Amino acid sequence: MAAWHSPSAAWRERSWWGWGWAGEALDDDACRRLAETALRPWMPIDGSVLPVPYDPVLDPPRLIPPSIMEEAFTADSVTRAAHTYGKAFRDVVRALHGRLENPPDLVCHPRTAHDVVATLDWAEAVGAAVVPYGGGTSVVGGVEYRGDAPWISLDLSRLNRIGEVDEVNHAVRVQAGVFGPALEQALAPHGLTLRHYPQSFEFSTVGGWLATRSAGHYATGPTRIDDFVEALRVITPQGPVESLRVPGSGAGPSTDALFLGSEGTLGVIVEAWLRVSARPSSSERASTSVAFPVYAEAVAAVRAILQAGLRPSNCRLLDPVEAMLNAGATDGQARLLLGFEGPTTPLLADALTICADHGGTATSKGDQGTWRDAFLRAPYTRDALIRLGLVVETVETACTWSRFDALHAAVIAAAQAAAPARVAVVTCRFTHAYPDGPAPYFTIITPARRGAEVAIWDEIKAAVSEAIAANGGTITHHHAVGRDHLPWLAEQRDPLFTDVLRAAKRTLDPRGILNPGALF
Amino acid sequence: MAAWHSPSAAWRERSWWGWGWAGEALDDDACRRLAETALRPWMPIDGSVLPVPYDPVLDPPRLIPPSIMEEAFTADSVTRAAHTYGKAFRDVVRALHGRLENPPDLVCHPRTAHDVVATLDWAEAVGAAVVPYGGGTSVVGGVEYRGDAPWISLDLSRLNRIGEVDEVNHAVRVQAGVFGPALEQALAPHGLTLRHYPQSFEFSTVGGWLATRSAGHYATGPTRIDDFVEALRVITPQGPVESLRVPGSGAGPSTDALFLGSEGTLGVIVEAWLRVSARPSSSERASTSVAFPVYAEAVAAVRAILQAGLRPSNCRLLDPVEAMLNAGATDGQARLLLGFEGPTTPLLADALTICADHGGTATSKGDQGTWRDAFLRAPYTRDALIRLGLVVETVETACTWSRFDALHAAVIAAAQAAAPARVAVVTCRFTHAYPDGPAPYFTIITPARRGAEVAIWDEIKAAVSEAIAANGGTITHHHAVGRDHLPWLAEQRDPLFTDVLRAAKRTLDPRGILNPGALF
Repeated sequence: MAAWHSPSAAWRERSWWGWGWAGEALDDDACRRLAETALRPWMPIDGSVLPVPYDPVLDPPRLIPPSIMEEAFTADSVTRAAHTYGKAFRDVVRALHGRLENPPDLVCHPRTAHDVVATLDWAEAVGAAVVPYGGGTSVVGGVEYRGDAPWISLDLSRLNRIGEVDEVNHAVRVQAGVFGPALEQALAPHGLTLRHYPQSFEFSTVGGWLATRSAGHYATGPTRIDDFVEALRVITPQGPVESLRVPGSGAGPSTDALFLGSEGTLGVIVEAWLRVSARPSSSERASTSVAFPVYAEAVAAVRAILQAGLRPSNCRLLDPVEAMLNAGATDGQARLLLGFEGPTTPLLADALTICADHGGTATSKGDQGTWRDAFLRAPYTRDALIRLGLVVETVETACTWSRFDALHAAVIAAAQAAAPARVAVVTCRFTHAYPDGPAPYFTIITPARRGAEVAIWDEIKAAVSEAIAANGGTITHHHAVGRDHLPWLAEQRDPLFTDVLRAAKRTLDPRGILNPGALF
Repeated sequence: MAAWHSPSAAWRERSWWGWGWAGEALDDDACRRLAETALRPWMPIDGSVLPVPYDPVLDPPRLIPPSIMEEAFTADSVTRAAHTYGKAFRDVVRALHGRLENPPDLVCHPRTAHDVVATLDWAEAVGAAVVPYGGGTSVVGGVEYRGDAPWISLDLSRLNRIGEVDEVNHAVRVQAGVFGPALEQALAPHGLTLRHYPQSFEFSTVGGWLATRSAGHYATGPTRIDDFVEALRVITPQGPVESLRVPGSGAGPSTDALFLGSEGTLGVIVEAWLRVSARPSSSERASTSVAFPVYAEAVAAVRAILQAGLRPSNCRLLDPVEAMLNAGATDGQARLLLGFEGPTTPLLADALTICADHGGTATSKGDQGTWRDAFLRAPYTRDALIRLGLVVETVETACTWSRFDALHAAVIAAAQAAAPARVAVVTCRFTHAYPDGPAPYFTIITPARRGAEVAIWDEIKAAVSEAIAANGGTITHHHAVGRDHLPWLAEQRDPLFTDVLRAAKRTLDPRGILNPGALF
């Protein structure tokens, strides 16, 4: 066992009701400016701004922490409120309206794997549900308990030690509660990187990535957290489960694959060995932006790039509406943000040749830094739009290439048909691309009636999810299942495999205390 | 449902006792020549040749086929004998000695998935065990039932239809019983390839690859059959299980991952959608051979190549003994067979620069075709060496780079210490390489006493497996678990995960008819 060290991190206040740092939220004036400059021309809003809520008042907790580890628990109202929901549109809007009907009775911050064991034992004894919580950025109801039992939000953010950085084998041993920036900070002096940047990077944890099969923003090749797992350590109510740390194994079904995507229902991931890689130098990066007059040709170009064996690090195709709203493209053309990294950087030229064959023109050197900043800022803007009275949410999937055109059209039509007054802006970009199909990501914006936001969104979400299922898409490529995707997962997941997962749950969590209502 | 077509294949006799085509086995004279030219200088053998056995005489079957599908079953002795064992050393030597104590009572050749359902139903009713059988090339006792119940070998080779070749999405829909050459033959007119070439390619099936997590001979990047799976269809005693065909999904734990590596214990894989890729043109291939005076430097070079982000299609490092015996290198140097394919072909130069940094010198343009022919011929030579009275077997694993030196030394020492008179030739090559470690593959040759071959090998195998486990290696990288690896799998697989797999088995195969004794 190598020595552990904790990354130092200055304390900074997280927003309990919305995204990210409390101080980064747009203030009322900034919201009004956003309304005037960005929205007025195309969205009927009245310019009023829903106020940021005062500190919440909650029902008293129904549980008393066990005396032997009292200091790990808190019943503080703001902490409980912050752990009531994830960060979906419907979470933020409910928090803004003060709708916090079922907060956790207690929040537990274990400092060691042993604390996790003790908490699960205690929860079993008192009949409490336990919802594992990493950074709390779920957008699918993954950390929101909806049952009647008293419950504990098990916040793993103090399991935040980074163990050995193994330069010989390009791997890192890390506890589940480590956030993205702390991990990269620890790897940087070694010239290494995990190369895994979900949009939630700053506010999500290694454990959360693993439990939800997070996909990083690299578009192709190894990008899903699954690809980087060497070994896991999981605490279940029946004991720990560990996998062997080897670069590859064919010794029966993968142990890790059972826990990847298990969303806290089968055990609490407490530690992982992850594969890391050398940081590419600046000379080993190249990127550009390509404009396509015909969207279908742009789609065909991305397909051809992947099927030629090229694996760009960025291959983000924005449809014309997305290109207009998020890349300032006023020419009505689609935009492909294309980048390569590492030894394959010179292959950008090959990809551009393919783009030209499909009518694409390189428009500018892509500035990945600026794009990434905007990408990371987007959720703060989303919160401001919500306060201005809009429904703003995203939906993502993956499908084969031959399904994409119909799926794209169907999602847009379904969202618009379900929106109030049939007014909705729907944009699409590819977050990931595979030789056999893209992962399209839709942003849907529509005006809401104050107080009816959740109902309006739920109707749109249902319509869009039906359209995805009907067109051969998965209900989620990387947002996970949580509770919000369950109705459509039931259509997608074979019932016999669901029986197998239930049998696994009975084996590992016989009293069913772990995240009840998620995934099953 | 697309139309199916069956690839045509001329009938050709398979050897029931040894590898491959009956007509390709070395005859007695060829065996003697091999002894004189290749073996005499370094291995004490007497030159006698164990005769090829006559057709086997078996106990009569204990089962009568069900009348409704009688034509799918056979009790023919040669067919039963051919389905008694796989193709490990211990299988061939037992067959040569006529030791066929527990042959299947019947061999069933289903022609449809419905036949599989009916066979499982019938087997449950009569209390028979069912061992799924693809090409029968298991080297780990995967297709050899060792229990007392009457049993059926379920030979899936007539589930051999290739459905849609999907050029748009670069995928193929294929039944489980299709052999490697038939699949490639069907893909070739479309300019596509699965790019998956296990050594057993000619004699193993898609279903066998999937059930055992086969690894193709490409050294890096996507090479394991797992990497190519879009969707599976599996028949279990409780009904079919299907996964959704999408390029990627994060909707909970992977359904496919449960069945990949399940070795016929949870269900019978009957069909798959597999990802295929464009065949590289000849201008998109380059390869060479590199000589290294210092083996440790060669190992370091392979590590550096992988960790630089290079992904050669071939990266097969032969240690000096392997280089001498299998590549004719008389200079005592290690050899790295290095090749690139597709758009990254020019990166061979980068890899050679790394080799030079480690004292490597390019010796010749590598001839992948010649090497591949020798590779595919090797099992026939193995059978001849067995007939000459040698123990000849392979052992493979994967470990992190930092574990490799000790593991390599320990495996060689363990094999030599356990060998009769402590005489054993042990060679090592890397079959695969990852950024975090290699997959070393050892060939062990030692003289045997006639009649004691199995006992001698089992002792060596146990010693070597202990050495692998003690040095952090997996008990199998790509040979699967079967029955022969079970004792060491028990050390490697967490007991709680074994409980989960047992629960999955109870759910899908409540009467435990499927391949009992394998994997658990």
